[in-house]
Amino acid sequence: MTNFEYRNPTKILFGKGQIASIAKEIAPGTKVMVTYGGGSIKSNGVYEQTMAALSGCTVVEFGGIEPNPEYETLMKAVRLGRAEKVELLLAVGGGSVLDGTKFIAAAIPFEGEEWDIVRKGAPLERSMPIGSILTLPATGSESNAFAVISRRETSEKLAFASDHSYPQFAVLDPETTFSLPPRQVANGVVDAFVHTMEQYMTFPAKAELNDRFAEGILQTLLEVGPRTLANPEEYDARATFVWSATLALNGLIGCGVPQDWATHMIGHELTALYGIDHARTLAAVAPHLWRVCQEGKAAKLLQYAERVWGIKDGSAAERMEAGIRKTEEFFEAMGLPTKLSKYENVQAGTAQEVAARLEGRGFKKLGERGEVTPALVEQILARSLAA
Amino acid sequence: MTNFEYRNPTKILFGKGQIASIAKEIAPGTKVMVTYGGGSIKSNGVYEQTMAALSGCTVVEFGGIEPNPEYETLMKAVRLGRAEKVELLLAVGGGSVLDGTKFIAAAIPFEGEEWDIVRKGAPLERSMPIGSILTLPATGSESNAFAVISRRETSEKLAFASDHSYPQFAVLDPETTFSLPPRQVANGVVDAFVHTMEQYMTFPAKAELNDRFAEGILQTLLEVGPRTLANPEEYDARATFVWSATLALNGLIGCGVPQDWATHMIGHELTALYGIDHARTLAAVAPHLWRVCQEGKAAKLLQYAERVWGIKDGSAAERMEAGIRKTEEFFEAMGLPTKLSKYENVQAGTAQEVAARLEGRGFKKLGERGEVTPALVEQILARSLAA
Repeated sequence: MTNFEYRNPTKILFGKGQIASIAKEIAPGTKVMVTYGGGSIKSNGVYEQTMAALSGCTVVEFGGIEPNPEYETLMKAVRLGRAEKVELLLAVGGGSVLDGTKFIAAAIPFEGEEWDIVRKGAPLERSMPIGSILTLPATGSESNAFAVISRRETSEKLAFASDHSYPQFAVLDPETTFSLPPRQVANGVVDAFVHTMEQYMTFPAKAELNDRFAEGILQTLLEVGPRTLANPEEYDARATFVWSATLALNGLIGCGVPQDWATHMIGHELTALYGIDHARTLAAVAPHLWRVCQEGKAAKLLQYAERVWGIKDGSAAERMEAGIRKTEEFFEAMGLPTKLSKYENVQAGTAQEVAARLEGRGFKKLGERGEVTPALVEQILARSLAA
Repeated sequence: MTNFEYRNPTKILFGKGQIASIAKEIAPGTKVMVTYGGGSIKSNGVYEQTMAALSGCTVVEFGGIEPNPEYETLMKAVRLGRAEKVELLLAVGGGSVLDGTKFIAAAIPFEGEEWDIVRKGAPLERSMPIGSILTLPATGSESNAFAVISRRETSEKLAFASDHSYPQFAVLDPETTFSLPPRQVANGVVDAFVHTMEQYMTFPAKAELNDRFAEGILQTLLEVGPRTLANPEEYDARATFVWSATLALNGLIGCGVPQDWATHMIGHELTALYGIDHARTLAAVAPHLWRVCQEGKAAKLLQYAERVWGIKDGSAAERMEAGIRKTEEFFEAMGLPTKLSKYENVQAGTAQEVAARLEGRGFKKLGERGEVTPALVEQILARSLAA
């Protein structure tokens, strides 16, 4: 185990009817900017519950934050928040609304060029306080310090993080997610699965407990993922999925262990180029990356195959491949293609283009060992692009 | 899964040399009361490292906090802290120093009879800020809101909890624990194991992820417990044990599931009566409690036997008994007796006395279902007292 610091101050309010609980988290009279996305919260009861809980506050609304939240959109909210002198931001939505709101909260008091927060990772001295009501489990953004922001004019999709960006509280009411489209539920399950793998599928670090926790999340997602997709209103399956997605990326399982994240870096470029859903880029990259990097990941691939999939027979190479194959079957069963070749709009030359884009951003050595060079990115994507 | 709230604001500073990190957690010039126990920190380098890190602060020392920290002792520290107008308390030690310091921090600004904090669970409006440097992994007290305080004159050992009692930060440097006596290491492993079982060995709550996390801690302790006892200076085994003990009782695995804690309630009485080490009371109570309550715990006993011990053969009764038997063998192998009859000073009539004491405190229905009545407490202890 390597040294680490861990602190996660977000208060989780979990369960049925918990939106009402935000009334005791926000002082009466506070000027609250409520941020949301395309408006689904107005058809599923979440908007009404939120406004009822905020009845003692002054509310400023900002809707229309899109998937892969756009810098231009978010800057409108920044200007509104400054003009209205809002005191707290309440993000009501999924990872995109959460991430976008983290940017808005950071940018409102920021002195300087706001895009630098993302592009240059400019250190933040402060942020507006943030609360969250999660309606789309997937990214863990409701209780972490990360945000991913896109800028269409430059086809960029980049992450920033700050200790000031943790939401103060996060409501997770599984019932508010019952009405999600199946595609978003499936994406969320795979997203949480790959988040876990990014912190697990590396090399052994003699961190037995972290391994067990990561394997526990993976096993749980394998069990409840298909169940919650098939039976969206089965409360406990949905609740377990929601809680798994939070714990997959709240910082805990990454403590003291090496982390990969190359799949995410590659995936972000594919979303930026082709608009493919985030989780779908992960499903189409991760298995190929594990194969290409299997020498360095061998010990963990074997542990994964045995502990998560119960694979004990065959040569080491066979067991590693069987574990990866099973994972692909799981992604496919959830409805996510594991090949970029399934996307008609993805062009020949994508492998080279993504490799060049990453190199252009200065990301020349990705992965837990820095072994994922642009040449390796090309190899990984070539496998995904093969018929 | 039942509804829950979860928030754990303690910042964990984990690893080699982390004591020095407290310098950035405490503002220069702060008046710090350093609390500790019998003085082992003065022979293992912890005291020197702590004082070096506090070189910019004014330090008031209070040593001599005993195992099962005593109200009378702690009140001396309360009076000292008030007289010196200390601004932060830094607990350097194990669970007893931590728990005692939580009481001191709560009592200093408390207006009223201080014992009421413990005896009556008087709600706290505030507490002095607390930091911690953990030197004895076991109780999880370094990052939770609980404390257990004893009062010799009334043979009482009672718990209190407050949201104000979380340490602001907790240093966990596994190397500072290398010099611990083997008995304390063994006690710590079993303590963490039973903490996990108190939150797991109940009835199924459709909380698959919590089950997996609890099972992960149990499996990890089974693996690293004997290793760290045999090889105290093997860093990764010790580090994994330290981290496991923290996660066993930082609130996380208890989210959304039923909890038992009857073993602890019974064990506290045994410590109060006979001075038996806390963990040793747990080892001598828990297996008997699981047997006596096995009808209500059957589903989890079977899951435990299979997932933690790999027991798949035999009738349900045989598998449950095999899981309990294996656990007893583990406790015994760590050096902790699983029978009260092994303690020469424990008197006949103890079963009746403990049952009567619990009843006298108003604890008439313990356990996750409230089924552990005084009569059942007697049954449990009678089994432990049998030769």
